[in-house]
Amino acid sequence: MEVEARAPGKLILAGEHAVVHGYAAVAASLGLFTRCRIRRSTPSDGICLQLLDLKLTLQWPLQDIESLVKIVKSDVDLADPNSPYIIEKIKDLIGENSLPEAKIGIASGVIAFLFLYSSILGAIPATVTISADLPMGAGLGSSASFCVSLVAALFAMTNMSALNASLNDNSERNHGVGNVNIDEKDLELVNKWAFKGETIIHGRPSGIDNTVSTFGYVVKVKSGHLTRLHDSIPLKILLTNTNVGRNTKALVAGVGERMQRHRKAMTAVFEAMEAITEELVEILQSASKWESHRSEQEGKVEELVEINQGCLQSIGVSHPSIELICQTTAKYQLRSKLTGAGGGGCVLTIIPEGLGLKTLEKVKKDLEDQGFQCFEAAIGVAGVHLVQGV
Amino acid sequence: MEVEARAPGKLILAGEHAVVHGYAAVAASLGLFTRCRIRRSTPSDGICLQLLDLKLTLQWPLQDIESLVKIVKSDVDLADPNSPYIIEKIKDLIGENSLPEAKIGIASGVIAFLFLYSSILGAIPATVTISADLPMGAGLGSSASFCVSLVAALFAMTNMSALNASLNDNSERNHGVGNVNIDEKDLELVNKWAFKGETIIHGRPSGIDNTVSTFGYVVKVKSGHLTRLHDSIPLKILLTNTNVGRNTKALVAGVGERMQRHRKAMTAVFEAMEAITEELVEILQSASKWESHRSEQEGKVEELVEINQGCLQSIGVSHPSIELICQTTAKYQLRSKLTGAGGGGCVLTIIPEGLGLKTLEKVKKDLEDQGFQCFEAAIGVAGVHLVQGV
Repeated sequence: MEVEARAPGKLILAGEHAVVHGYAAVAASLGLFTRCRIRRSTPSDGICLQLLDLKLTLQWPLQDIESLVKIVKSDVDLADPNSPYIIEKIKDLIGENSLPEAKIGIASGVIAFLFLYSSILGAIPATVTISADLPMGAGLGSSASFCVSLVAALFAMTNMSALNASLNDNSERNHGVGNVNIDEKDLELVNKWAFKGETIIHGRPSGIDNTVSTFGYVVKVKSGHLTRLHDSIPLKILLTNTNVGRNTKALVAGVGERMQRHRKAMTAVFEAMEAITEELVEILQSASKWESHRSEQEGKVEELVEINQGCLQSIGVSHPSIELICQTTAKYQLRSKLTGAGGGGCVLTIIPEGLGLKTLEKVKKDLEDQGFQCFEAAIGVAGVHLVQGV
Repeated sequence: MEVEARAPGKLILAGEHAVVHGYAAVAASLGLFTRCRIRRSTPSDGICLQLLDLKLTLQWPLQDIESLVKIVKSDVDLADPNSPYIIEKIKDLIGENSLPEAKIGIASGVIAFLFLYSSILGAIPATVTISADLPMGAGLGSSASFCVSLVAALFAMTNMSALNASLNDNSERNHGVGNVNIDEKDLELVNKWAFKGETIIHGRPSGIDNTVSTFGYVVKVKSGHLTRLHDSIPLKILLTNTNVGRNTKALVAGVGERMQRHRKAMTAVFEAMEAITEELVEILQSASKWESHRSEQEGKVEELVEINQGCLQSIGVSHPSIELICQTTAKYQLRSKLTGAGGGGCVLTIIPEGLGLKTLEKVKKDLEDQGFQCFEAAIGVAGVHLVQGV
């Protein structure tokens, strides 16, 4: 038996940093995916994890997983991913030296993998293959889409879940050739477990990334409360990686200090960001208006992106590389903003429907010639799904 | 007899564009001056206007001015600079062909000159020499400082005014060696007449430019109401001319349209701008705090400048040349913003006290190598004054 699940990334469309101060932000799913394929193997093969993008294969004998399963199944409290006991147990299992030095950064991902595998699938031998379109550590929810695709594939492997049944369900809910939607109730289960994985990887995740990757479309966030929007108009973007490393913690702290020094001005800037978020959400939910007034609506989205980038510069989280990308795309009348923490990271550029392919290639070449890395992607796509016919 | 008056320019420190929508802005005097020297001559010389920077000399026979004086003195209504009759009369006097073609742009300035000269000094033969540190048409109040210096010098020439007396007054109100302050009451007279000159040149001036040039320091503006602040901490800036021509009307209209489309977000951005204005005014008025916490206060001013530039980018009035200047100065940890209408025009950069001369020269060279024109200047200086001992 073999299953494959595909989970999108996420990006912050508007409201980054404002959300830290209690203002609304909006995240959208990003049509760059992590794929998790699980193939049943023989007991002697044990558990094999292939991380294709990292060219890394890890393997554990089945009895290691069996001992882990005993722990995670023995006590609800122990199965809490925040339990130091279980994490320590898994660390023992990996062994200090089992990961190549350069890959130490993914140790928490491997711990999350073993936790989720043993909790959901149990001591069943299989080969798990992970590949991703998403760059890691760029604020695009790569770890969440890893967890979500893994959990969905693991549940699909079990006969306990209804997921498996839906694999044979070719109903009108399917959103693409070869893709199978997962029932809402099952998605909630996937989301819950993916959040546990995220907790192992990030400590105290907001839950935004796994929610967007699981349910797709658009999620509004305010004061820790997530509001899922069940549809979104399709928006095409160009995502440009500055390749400049960010220090999210320092950026958030810097904004906080600026807020202390200039409370009134900063509060007004955050209010502008919240207004941008609200307006964007409204536009993304107005499918009929999008049909009838596409270029006007696109123009509004672009203008909101420009206003938002100005606000982000105001609060001090831009970076010369970000501004260079904004100015490069502006030469082609395209509007860009940083997405996520800023200070480097990724920049999104709205691609209007009317933009010629030649121009788009020119923009990309212009950016790539400056050493940046570009990805074309849709945003507001559906969430995790199983891939049929693997 | 000979007199000389010197009037500063102005720049908008914060709140440009926001002020159009009813929010506060703050203008400061700029230590780049227009000098007006008047030397009594003989009746056969008539009236001579020398515009040194334009290398232009204009001359009128005394009887032309005599006929003009009759008109301006005959009727209060006629003396209204908005009266088409008087403007037409002056236009006749200049003659269609008396100005070289390239100088047609200064025709309204010449009309203002003849109106003010005949109204204040009457048919007295003299040579008026104008020279300026200020670039023209760059949003730095060059026309107002022309009018203010001219009016102050004209009044100083008359024996009717108290100005003359103060020339011999070396009291403690003098603010610099060789400079003589003008009494507050006389300044009000100067301001009133300079405004008439501005009306001829600009049609419907806000009155900010002549008020700042006359009284100096800092002027807060909100809903057409001007609040003069009678002192200011001295701030040194670098002013960089993008040499990109602006279309103020189109820029203001563009902001208005963006306001229609995104009222909530734009309103919040304007509120941020108003908060910046209020905070700047407070800092500029806190001389004692400036003394005791100079670098902290300077840091705040710089941060407000950065926040403000982000807001200006948000409302869509920046320009690639402006952003290039901001980024160039940012390399030296200096903060810059556009000043005035934007879309080109001038950019101001705060020069902190601790900045080494070498670094400042480097910044200037860097900017000048990119084709920009730099001026060092103080802001918040005293207003128009007479220069002693000419």
